[in-house]
Amino acid sequence: MSTETTTFSGIVPPIVTPLTLEGEVDTTSLERLLSLQIEAGVDGLFVLGSSGEVGYLTDAQRAQVVQTAIGHVGGQVPVLVGVNDMTTNRVIAVAEQAREAGADAIVATAPFYAITDAAETATHFRSIHAAVDLPLFAYDVPVRVHSKLSPAMLVELGREGVIAGVKDSSGDDVSFRMLLRQSAGLENFAVFTGHEVVVDGCLLMGASGAVPGLANVDPHGYVRLWRAAQAGNWAAAKAEQDRLTDLFSIVEAPTPGRVSAGAAGLGAFKTALALRGVITGNTMCAPMLSLDESETATIKVVLEQAGLL
Amino acid sequence: MSTETTTFSGIVPPIVTPLTLEGEVDTTSLERLLSLQIEAGVDGLFVLGSSGEVGYLTDAQRAQVVQTAIGHVGGQVPVLVGVNDMTTNRVIAVAEQAREAGADAIVATAPFYAITDAAETATHFRSIHAAVDLPLFAYDVPVRVHSKLSPAMLVELGREGVIAGVKDSSGDDVSFRMLLRQSAGLENFAVFTGHEVVVDGCLLMGASGAVPGLANVDPHGYVRLWRAAQAGNWAAAKAEQDRLTDLFSIVEAPTPGRVSAGAAGLGAFKTALALRGVITGNTMCAPMLSLDESETATIKVVLEQAGLL
Amino acid sequence: MSTETTTFSGIVPPIVTPLTLEGEVDTTSLERLLSLQIEAGVDGLFVLGSSGEVGYLTDAQRAQVVQTAIGHVGGQVPVLVGVNDMTTNRVIAVAEQAREAGADAIVATAPFYAITDAAETATHFRSIHAAVDLPLFAYDVPVRVHSKLSPAMLVELGREGVIAGVKDSSGDDVSFRMLLRQSAGLENFAVFTGHEVVVDGCLLMGASGAVPGLANVDPHGYVRLWRAAQAGNWAAAKAEQDRLTDLFSIVEAPTPGRVSAGAAGLGAFKTALALRGVITGNTMCAPMLSLDESETATIKVVLEQAGLL
Amino acid sequence: MSTETTTFSGIVPPIVTPLTLEGEVDTTSLERLLSLQIEAGVDGLFVLGSSGEVGYLTDAQRAQVVQTAIGHVGGQVPVLVGVNDMTTNRVIAVAEQAREAGADAIVATAPFYAITDAAETATHFRSIHAAVDLPLFAYDVPVRVHSKLSPAMLVELGREGVIAGVKDSSGDDVSFRMLLRQSAGLENFAVFTGHEVVVDGCLLMGASGAVPGLANVDPHGYVRLWRAAQAGNWAAAKAEQDRLTDLFSIVEAPTPGRVSAGAAGLGAFKTALALRGVITGNTMCAPMLSLDESETATIKVVLEQAGLL
Repeated sequence: MSTETTTFSGIVPPIVTPLTLEGEVDTTSLERLLSLQIEAGVDGLFVLGSSGEVGYLTDAQRAQVVQTAIGHVGGQVPVLVGVNDMTTNRVIAVAEQAREAGADAIVATAPFYAITDAAETATHFRSIHAAVDLPLFAYDVPVRVHSKLSPAMLVELGREGVIAGVKDSSGDDVSFRMLLRQSAGLENFAVFTGHEVVVDGCLLMGASGAVPGLANVDPHGYVRLWRAAQAGNWAAAKAEQDRLTDLFSIVEAPTPGRVSAGAAGLGAFKTALALRGVITGNTMCAPMLSLDESETATIKVVLEQAGLL
Repeated sequence: MSTETTTFSGIVPPIVTPLTLEGEVDTTSLERLLSLQIEAGVDGLFVLGSSGEVGYLTDAQRAQVVQTAIGHVGGQVPVLVGVNDMTTNRVIAVAEQAREAGADAIVATAPFYAITDAAETATHFRSIHAAVDLPLFAYDVPVRVHSKLSPAMLVELGREGVIAGVKDSSGDDVSFRMLLRQSAGLENFAVFTGHEVVVDGCLLMGASGAVPGLANVDPHGYVRLWRAAQAGNWAAAKAEQDRLTDLFSIVEAPTPGRVSAGAAGLGAFKTALALRGVITGNTMCAPMLSLDESETATIKVVLEQAGLL
Repeated sequence: MSTETTTFSGIVPPIVTPLTLEGEVDTTSLERLLSLQIEAGVDGLFVLGSSGEVGYLTDAQRAQVVQTAIGHVGGQVPVLVGVNDMTTNRVIAVAEQAREAGADAIVATAPFYAITDAAETATHFRSIHAAVDLPLFAYDVPVRVHSKLSPAMLVELGREGVIAGVKDSSGDDVSFRMLLRQSAGLENFAVFTGHEVVVDGCLLMGASGAVPGLANVDPHGYVRLWRAAQAGNWAAAKAEQDRLTDLFSIVEAPTPGRVSAGAAGLGAFKTALALRGVITGNTMCAPMLSLDESETATIKVVLEQAGLL
Repeated sequence: MSTETTTFSGIVPPIVTPLTLEGEVDTTSLERLLSLQIEAGVDGLFVLGSSGEVGYLTDAQRAQVVQTAIGHVGGQVPVLVGVNDMTTNRVIAVAEQAREAGADAIVATAPFYAITDAAETATHFRSIHAAVDLPLFAYDVPVRVHSKLSPAMLVELGREGVIAGVKDSSGDDVSFRMLLRQSAGLENFAVFTGHEVVVDGCLLMGASGAVPGLANVDPHGYVRLWRAAQAGNWAAAKAEQDRLTDLFSIVEAPTPGRVSAGAAGLGAFKTALALRGVITGNTMCAPMLSLDESETATIKVVLEQAGLL
């Protein structure tokens, strides 16, 4: 897939990484999950995102996920790969591996652990782009990296051809709309929301698509939502989003205090997928706890109400 | 206007407080501004919000604003009054004055300066409601009070009849959608967005209306946006919002570094209103700087492009 | 007491505001508390600080506290008065009242609720100084006002004669040392730490004194610590501080989750003072909860171990 | 060096990583720097800390630094190695390499990029300790990892034998004193401050030593400060610290806005070392800028005043 002709849009689920009880990558489950997504009609797949526990997997495990995904998907849809590390040279090393493995695009955050600023962050993206011949998405996720990418910088990087777009998980809808509006004229620049429950509003405002973690659990719902929006049927899009927003309440099943906020959401997605029979178990990477029997029971009720069991 | 029968919805601009060069309330300008809003067809007016520089006005100036607004509006639309102070008893004292002056509803934040928690915040709203016989709106503005009101607490307070709704300036669209979805069944509970550039998306997602500072400058635009959304004409709503988003770029006219972020937005609104001839000058409360000639010239160009001069 | 000749140093406890069960100022208890402090040999008294629940008291209650304190102290030691409000003109109004009531100095924070910056904050202090003829202390308390006062700004304001010193509750010891070092040559500029458990280290580093909330409970201990440090007996100062640090564990008596962080510390001080018979009860301002019987029992044990009962 | 018998105390500089113009590790300069430190009488050396740009070096460069340091030091003083990565399993992989290379101890932070909590963080340290047979230090650095390690957790981990101590770069002196006081009875538990300008106060309060980045530039000064404190000569300790605090002003030489806060401090240390002829150049890791000629000139003046040129 060549850089020039690929455009990115639609539903691109950030795929969770199923694990065995021993904490190793469960490639069989991963392949079943990928198949479910493709059958549902998603427009792309994003592995090794935050939802994929990229920050927790070892280098070997990351390589295994990428290899499995690219091999199994076989070019049916583009595969985007997260290249998360603290700073530029470390990201480039990881990105080079993703390129060699056959990724269609890479997704990188601002530097973290580093005490950085906007100028360094722009240099960071420019250096990654210069070093790695793949479409590069900027992943705006202040809750993890503790800096925000400004619309002005993102649009400038888009204009230079440094980035092919943005995955916005900033939770800042004002900034998101400014980005959409200011990038409206740019070619080959895609803006995705990473938030599960505002996809209808974001699409109305002009977003190119969504990267919703909840799509792991219900890709068909998000595909319907996307197609309704494409057809201009906003009432239907809103109704589908309302249904998915109710489904999203599974992330509140984990007992607060027992399970961290990071583990709660991902743990809920994995548990729902296990209940649906897509993946074998709901094991989380260390040091996160997996959801327990009682929390699983709560999720089961929500899935039943949603007609997903 | 009795508590039982009033419902709140639509466009409710948070009115800026025009000042004379000496820093006193310019009541004549305030009346002209209120008239412009009513003529444009707004559904309510909110005085002494953050846009009204409530945190900067003295007690006497606040009283003057309330008296002027309620007198001039004369019941044509409901007047909501901000009752901002640090903690419960201080808010109640201010709210009692608003009630005596004839306010139709009051708007209160969580405690600030205080090092507080969710339980105290809920008690805070319950105590205000118990003490003051007026519809009470919770104003969620973490950028100023440094705590976030959770959807669960707000829905619970709504269910108890403590609050009549929420003005959300949290910038957190995920929380906003959860609030909309979880309060969907509640009667007499209105959810407003306070963000200027996402009103189309928020209305699609089910918001009751908007409290956009930019409506000071262009109330007709927001009224058109609201009416398009009410009619289910989402393409028109989006187009109007795009136009207003471009207009919102006036807040970027102030030179970064010269003017604080707090002064930039409000200063831009006041300057635009002065350019439009609605208010006499663009003076800001101390210690904020007013926009200068060069910044004013930048705003003039944007207004001309928007056809507002 | 004239501005020119007063210098400030030593132990200046931030006095809690005793309340009756009904939440009114308990002036009799307040007078007993002030007497205890003076008998212990403190060098000044600070009323209406955060420890005095300044953010929670109504205007009338604040006036009552100031009047009671200044009347009862009768010039034996200087009385500093907190003049807390959101922005410049509101602070000036409060400060003018403190001056009329006979305060020896006033203590003001940066603007809060406001979205401000360093330039506005400097203007804020300059305007207060210009308007109110009293020594002005800058109170650096980012945990409440959410901005930090830089050493460079504080030293500049000191050099201009705008501020007479700083009460540092920033919890940032690096900044504190830079402030001490950079202000080392300034006349009539006093730097106080507001932190109870690092007074020995701060005095070694050159601080002018301390404003420790825990001194409400054990003023004699802090006076001994101060005198040891003055005598260059650092081992004795450290030993006294260690004892007071153990005593400070009373702030951990309140059950986490039941009582807010803001209420826990002040509630512990009030409860200890009630147990010591200095004040009548441990009532807190709304919406804060007062410490309960079980929490009080925990504090009693600590006081007994400290030989304070 | 066996785990049982090593105790850690005194001055343990966090060694910067000299780079060639091409951005590769300059091992010759590194060896000269290590020699300077040992000659000055430091008590240990810490490589691959934040000052060592651990977050910026590639895996190969990190290995080169560890190998060079352990080889060159040859057991004269203990060598602590930073094992920074996002989460538990990734840290263990890095730590295992440090152990094989001959490290005397390892230093790990809380998880980052992860959205974690206190329970996960404790599990994280316990798992690292269980997997890697080396003394483990907890590195408390909220400005980078965005969570704070509580004294209670650290003392509990010390009691369990999980950690051998703490490097505190939290900037929270209250928490630091609580940690010192609560760990006072623990054997084999060392508490180091990571802040350059408060070492005298921290040692008075009972700290085991310091890990000051500025000691790269002037190890002799910190060794004198440590020895004065050990001898109970607090006036001398304070005077030496005042001198070092003045020297620390080199971190303000970089032009604000041109160089990030992260690059300013480290860049100043490298530049000062280059001016002193200890290392060859002041190159920083990408994407950080190196200090320029004008900034270097400013630092030169400070070094001259300090008698270090």
